[in-house]
Amino acid sequence: MTRSSVPPPVTAVMDAASAWLPARMAVVEDRLAELAGAYGPKLGEEAEATLKAGGKRLRPILVLMAAGDGAGDRAIRVATAVELLHMATLVHDDVLDGAPVRRGRPTVVARSGRDRAVGVGDLLLSRAFAELAVGGGGAEVAELSSASVALALGELAQRSDTYDTSISEQRYLERCSLKTARLFESACRMGRLASGRPGTEELGSFGREIGLAFQLLDDVLDVTGPPERTGKARGTDLLDGTVTLPLILARRLDPELESVELRGLDQARAEEICDRIAATEALDQVRNRAKGGIARAKGILESADLSEEEGQLLGMIADGVVERYS
Amino acid sequence: MTRSSVPPPVTAVMDAASAWLPARMAVVEDRLAELAGAYGPKLGEEAEATLKAGGKRLRPILVLMAAGDGAGDRAIRVATAVELLHMATLVHDDVLDGAPVRRGRPTVVARSGRDRAVGVGDLLLSRAFAELAVGGGGAEVAELSSASVALALGELAQRSDTYDTSISEQRYLERCSLKTARLFESACRMGRLASGRPGTEELGSFGREIGLAFQLLDDVLDVTGPPERTGKARGTDLLDGTVTLPLILARRLDPELESVELRGLDQARAEEICDRIAATEALDQVRNRAKGGIARAKGILESADLSEEEGQLLGMIADGVVERYS
Repeated sequence: MTRSSVPPPVTAVMDAASAWLPARMAVVEDRLAELAGAYGPKLGEEAEATLKAGGKRLRPILVLMAAGDGAGDRAIRVATAVELLHMATLVHDDVLDGAPVRRGRPTVVARSGRDRAVGVGDLLLSRAFAELAVGGGGAEVAELSSASVALALGELAQRSDTYDTSISEQRYLERCSLKTARLFESACRMGRLASGRPGTEELGSFGREIGLAFQLLDDVLDVTGPPERTGKARGTDLLDGTVTLPLILARRLDPELESVELRGLDQARAEEICDRIAATEALDQVRNRAKGGIARAKGILESADLSEEEGQLLGMIADGVVERYS
Repeated sequence: MTRSSVPPPVTAVMDAASAWLPARMAVVEDRLAELAGAYGPKLGEEAEATLKAGGKRLRPILVLMAAGDGAGDRAIRVATAVELLHMATLVHDDVLDGAPVRRGRPTVVARSGRDRAVGVGDLLLSRAFAELAVGGGGAEVAELSSASVALALGELAQRSDTYDTSISEQRYLERCSLKTARLFESACRMGRLASGRPGTEELGSFGREIGLAFQLLDDVLDVTGPPERTGKARGTDLLDGTVTLPLILARRLDPELESVELRGLDQARAEEICDRIAATEALDQVRNRAKGGIARAKGILESADLSEEEGQLLGMIADGVVERYS
């Protein structure tokens, strides 16, 4: 239930939309870099490092794709705001996890301590709203703040479930919805809103489905590794006390996993549990669910009011979420 | 440079505007309570406790007063959002300070740990923007997000100055501006914007002046106590390594204070330093500056486009900031 550092499932989309998407994404990158540097060499250095650490940029790309190639500057601002919010949650999550490394680089909390990491997260979160506020956009502020509330609630739910191996599938899915799917949904909705074109609801549902599938597959990856691909040790979720769907389903299939205790795990024991989970059919069950979600997402695209190119590009993103793990 | 728990300087204003202000403030309180309870009995319990812990509510009162008695529901939303943002910063500040008690009650971080406190702060901050987003208000979102950025920068600046007894007066004032004066300014500006009446700039300047005076006098209070009035031990800032204007000025007047080292202080030694600061003229110098700011604030009111009653009420708030400390 952490977020991984696997390379983007978006290269194919960038190629397919090479006439406009990479150029627009470059504007978002420039804006992110500009904002990061806007607070002076010392104060802004962590914000800058956080933004420069990169990542998949999947959320801003969804914004730009939902807005379409004809969208104006508003879509750029929205894409920037969505990524700023995402970065803010990563910085705060790392404070909670005490995570030393993300995407192969030291986290803000590891480099500069908890104090600065809380402040940097607050700064990024505030900047996200400041970015949206330029030139109005009440509906978009409502979307982003609602996603931001969901992220905080998801984080609180996850913390309150820590070490609880008895949590239900439903509770897990609710957490995924709050922590991941909601921002994917908002990214798509806000992008479409910014374009002034119809299809906001459908694209929101599309985003929610792929966001959920993304999280399910991420949780599979935490069990399977390999670390050189994920950028983190296998079983990191278990070590953090975070129970995800692979374990929830595997517990039904392997009685020995039912009595597993997550408190006080070490790395070796965590990997042992990963192996036991992998020996059941649980991982395939989770993968199949994710694939079902991707199929639903693509079905939504067919019924939505989109151009042929738009439907194709968004379909590629949906496929990319699965391919990333195959 | 913490925020104290001295009773409100607003009782007189509430009495003077008894025909409308208490009733409108009660609506804000109801809304805050409603939002706190909106996340279920378990998840929302810290948010609820934080909101219910009360406090001076000086910022939402400023919003309502700047908006005036004829303002509509928009001013209520703005007042609620401003208080939510303020509470969010308190919760996160307490994470950083590891503060056990605020306003005589256990802090979120003391009661539920750092993890939940970061999440609760994020939730309150996100809710603030969600509150503003209802019914539009791009200019207000721009104001609040800019204040929120300032608060985060102020917190980062304070952390990076920790234990540095050589910081300049100018640097201290810059921090006060970011951490305190900016939100007072925004509260006044946003209240006026919500009323649709002229005077936004003037009221913003008024808010900035009294916010700065408020912080200066709060920093005096940290030196003088008494604890039964402030709700915290004397010298709390010193123990946190936070250098404020009383020490900055006192160091020029007492050579022994010049070499004082804040690392590793205990309570007895902190109080000893407080006594030495109090023995100089530094506290009077700080108080006089604060009074100068209050005088400037009242001067601004005279030149602003306000009704006589509005000018009087805002003048009472300004006086209340000083009287609170006399």
